[in-house]
Amino acid sequence: MKFLFELLSKQSVSGDESDMAQYIFDYVQKRAFSWKVQPEVFFGEDFHDCVLLKFGTPTTAVFAHIDTIGFMARYQNQLIPVGGPEIIEGTRLVGKDRKGEISCKIVGGEDGCFHDFPRGIDRGTRLSFEQNIRVDEDYIQAAYLDNRLGVYNALKLCESLENGWVVFSTYEEHGGGSMPFLLSFIQNKAPVRQALISDITWITEGVEHHKGVVVSIRDKFIPRRRFIDRLVALAEESGVPFQLEVEAFGGSDGREVQFSPYLIDWCFIGAAEDEVHTPNEKVSLFDLDCMLKMYRFLMEKL
Amino acid sequence: MKFLFELLSKQSVSGDESDMAQYIFDYVQKRAFSWKVQPEVFFGEDFHDCVLLKFGTPTTAVFAHIDTIGFMARYQNQLIPVGGPEIIEGTRLVGKDRKGEISCKIVGGEDGCFHDFPRGIDRGTRLSFEQNIRVDEDYIQAAYLDNRLGVYNALKLCESLENGWVVFSTYEEHGGGSMPFLLSFIQNKAPVRQALISDITWITEGVEHHKGVVVSIRDKFIPRRRFIDRLVALAEESGVPFQLEVEAFGGSDGREVQFSPYLIDWCFIGAAEDEVHTPNEKVSLFDLDCMLKMYRFLMEKL
Amino acid sequence: MKFLFELLSKQSVSGDESDMAQYIFDYVQKRAFSWKVQPEVFFGEDFHDCVLLKFGTPTTAVFAHIDTIGFMARYQNQLIPVGGPEIIEGTRLVGKDRKGEISCKIVGGEDGCFHDFPRGIDRGTRLSFEQNIRVDEDYIQAAYLDNRLGVYNALKLCESLENGWVVFSTYEEHGGGSMPFLLSFIQNKAPVRQALISDITWITEGVEHHKGVVVSIRDKFIPRRRFIDRLVALAEESGVPFQLEVEAFGGSDGREVQFSPYLIDWCFIGAAEDEVHTPNEKVSLFDLDCMLKMYRFLMEKL
Repeated sequence: MKFLFELLSKQSVSGDESDMAQYIFDYVQKRAFSWKVQPEVFFGEDFHDCVLLKFGTPTTAVFAHIDTIGFMARYQNQLIPVGGPEIIEGTRLVGKDRKGEISCKIVGGEDGCFHDFPRGIDRGTRLSFEQNIRVDEDYIQAAYLDNRLGVYNALKLCESLENGWVVFSTYEEHGGGSMPFLLSFIQNKAPVRQALISDITWITEGVEHHKGVVVSIRDKFIPRRRFIDRLVALAEESGVPFQLEVEAFGGSDGREVQFSPYLIDWCFIGAAEDEVHTPNEKVSLFDLDCMLKMYRFLMEKL
Repeated sequence: MKFLFELLSKQSVSGDESDMAQYIFDYVQKRAFSWKVQPEVFFGEDFHDCVLLKFGTPTTAVFAHIDTIGFMARYQNQLIPVGGPEIIEGTRLVGKDRKGEISCKIVGGEDGCFHDFPRGIDRGTRLSFEQNIRVDEDYIQAAYLDNRLGVYNALKLCESLENGWVVFSTYEEHGGGSMPFLLSFIQNKAPVRQALISDITWITEGVEHHKGVVVSIRDKFIPRRRFIDRLVALAEESGVPFQLEVEAFGGSDGREVQFSPYLIDWCFIGAAEDEVHTPNEKVSLFDLDCMLKMYRFLMEKL
Repeated sequence: MKFLFELLSKQSVSGDESDMAQYIFDYVQKRAFSWKVQPEVFFGEDFHDCVLLKFGTPTTAVFAHIDTIGFMARYQNQLIPVGGPEIIEGTRLVGKDRKGEISCKIVGGEDGCFHDFPRGIDRGTRLSFEQNIRVDEDYIQAAYLDNRLGVYNALKLCESLENGWVVFSTYEEHGGGSMPFLLSFIQNKAPVRQALISDITWITEGVEHHKGVVVSIRDKFIPRRRFIDRLVALAEESGVPFQLEVEAFGGSDGREVQFSPYLIDWCFIGAAEDEVHTPNEKVSLFDLDCMLKMYRFLMEKL
C-alpha cells in the first residue's frame, strides 16, 4: 500500500507527466532485479514522458496512462479544464508556478470556472485536486485513482511477467497523442497482436462495486467480437470474478489502438469507480484485487 | 439477383464481420476462375475481418465496407446503437446469443431504447434489422442496402477488372478503424494514387431516384478539386448517367483516406437511397446499374 | 508589402489550393538565389498541393497552411461552408465556374445560407470573400489574413534560414489531412524533433493588439509543458515582445503533429487578429513584425 500511496501523491496533469515518468523509471530501476524477468527499458527524451518495458517475447501489450485530469490557469482568475474534471464549487486545487506553491478553491461552475487564490497565477499553470486518501476495509477513496490504480496494476504485473510489453502512456485524459508513437515503436521493435487497457471505468446500473474486475465489451468504441469472445472464455476459465460492461460513451487508450494502422485486438479491463473525475473517486479493494489477478492470468494465457 | 439476395441475408454488425468476410472469401474462391484476371487474395487472421483483392498492377483502389449498423444489448432490456440506426418503435430485430436465436421488437425511441424479448439477452449481443427484401421493376427495398450494394458492385467489378485493388473494409458505420491498416498494407504492397468509395448515399433535394449514380463532390469531408474535376470529365465521357452531390454532413471510408499519411485522391461514387439506416432502404435499380457501369468505365480509364 | 498584397489577392479555399501552391513554388524559384541558404524544394503531383523546403540540417519544422475558409455552391442557390466562415448577410463573395466569373452576396444566415447570383452556380463551386485590403500606420485589415500572414512569415524566414523545414500545408481550415503525409515525408527525409505552427490566432480578453506575437500554451490541444517552458525561456531571451495564450478551443496544424506517430514537440506562434474568419480580419503591424523577428530568433536557437 505504501507504494500505491506514493503513486497517488504525485501530480501529473496531461502534458506535464515528466515527474511521473521519472518516478516510474526510478521504481523500475530499483525493483526490476527482484522480478521474474528483467525487462528492456525505454525512457528519456526520445520517448517524451512515456516509459516502455519489454519482457521476453511479447504477443500482448498492457497500456496504463500516467496522466490525470486537472485545470489550467487562463487569464485573470479563470480556470479551464484539462480533460473532463467535475467542476464542483469549493473543491480544493493545488499546483505550483514561478512564484511558488498554490492552494486554492474552485469558484463558479460549468459555465465559468475561477480560482480564489489571492494572487494571480501564471498563465498556463496546471492545477489538480488536492489529494486525500481514505482506505477502509472495503474501499479506497482518493483523487487520481483513474489511472493510478491502472499504473499500480501494470507495475505489480511486472513482478511475474514473462512475455509482454508494459507501457505507460501520456495525454489519455485530453484526447491522446502518445499512443500512435508508442504503437509504432512497439510494432517495429517486437510486435504484438493484442492489447489490454489497464484503466479504471465507471460504476453504472450494470456495473457494481465488489462484483469483480470489469471486462468491457464496448465503450464509445467497439473491440472486435472474435477477440472479446476469446477473452471472456479465458476470464471464465480464470475463476477470477469479473463483470461485463456495455457502454455507449467513454473512451480509453483503446480508441487509439482501434484507429492505428496496425491490426491489434484490444480490450479495456479494469476496476470500476464512482464519483468519477472528482477528488473522491472510490474503488472496491476486492475489485482491484480481481484486476491484479485477472491481468496475471490473462498475460500468461493470451 | 440470387447472389445479391444472399449478400442481403447475412448479418454483419460493425465489429462482428467475420462471417461476412468468410462469405466473400468463399465467393471469390468459387468465382475467380471465370474472371478476366485472377486476383491475389489477402484474407485470414492477419487481416482481421477484411478481405483484399489485388488485380494486375493497381493505380486505383475500390473500397466497400462490409459492416452494417445495428444495436447491442446493454443491461436489463436496454439497447444501445452500433453506428447510427434509425430508432423506430416496433421495428423488428434479430440476432443470436449463447441461449439461442433472438427475434424481438424495438420499444421506446431516441431517448431510451429497449427490446421486448421475453428473456434477458446476453450483454454485448448484436442485433440488427430483420431482413425483408422487396423488388419491383424500379426499386429494390431492404435492410442493409448500405452497403451490400457497394459490396455487390465491387464483386461485379471483379469480373472484368484488369488492374486495381478491390478492398472490403470493416467498422465503417462505427467510426472506422480498419482503413488505416488497409491503406498501409496496400501502399506497401502495390501503392495507388486514387481511391473510389463504393458505398450508398442519400436521396436529398438535389439527388433523386432514377437520375444515375452519384459522384460526390463532398460530404462532411472534401476531396481534392483537381481529382474531382478529372473524375467528372471522365464521367461525362462515359455516357453513364450520373448526379453530382454536395453535402455538408455524412462520411465514408473516404474520410480515412483523407486523414491517412498517404496522398491518395479519393471520391465517393454510389447509388442513392432513401429511408436511410432503416429496414426499408430503397434504391433505384437504374441507379444501381449506372453504378456498376460507371465503376467499370472509371477503373479502366483512371 | 507588394508581395503580401499579391499573397492576399489569391483564392485558395480548402481542397483547391493548387494555384496558391504554384504561386509559392514560382516565388521560391525566383527568390531563393538571394537567400542565405538554397533549400531543397519538394513540389508537384507527388505532393498534391503542398510545398516543402528543406534548409541545411533541420531540427525544427515550420508549418504554414495555404488554404482559407470559404463556401461551396450546393443545390439551387444554397451555400454550405468550407471550414468555419462567419456568415453575415450581405457579405460579398467571388469565385468562378464553367460559365464564368461569379460575384454575389450572402443572403440568410447560420440557419440557411444562400447566394443572390442571378444565374445558377455549378454544384461544388468554391466561393470566398471578396478581397479588400486596408493598411494604416497600425493595422492591416483584409480577408485571408488567416493564414496569408503565416505564409508571409514563413517565406520571409526563408531569407536567412540556415537549418530547418519550411512547409506549406493544405486543408487546415477543413479538418486537415495533408499533415499526416507531410510529417511522414519529413521524418523519413530529414527528421525533426520540434515544430512551430506559423498561423494567426484570436484577440481575446487576454490577448491584445500591439502587445507582441502570441506564443500559445494551449488551444483545444495542449503541447508538452517541457517544450513550452523551454520556448518561453527563449522568447524571453529574444527581447521580442510576446504574449502567452491559454485557450480551451480552436485548433491548428499542431493538432495533427500531436496525434501523429512521431514524438515531435509543437507550439503555435503567431500574431492575433480580430473579426476572425470575416472579410475584415485585422492584425497589428507591430505584432506581425514581432512574429517575423521571433521566428528568426527561435529557428536559430532551437
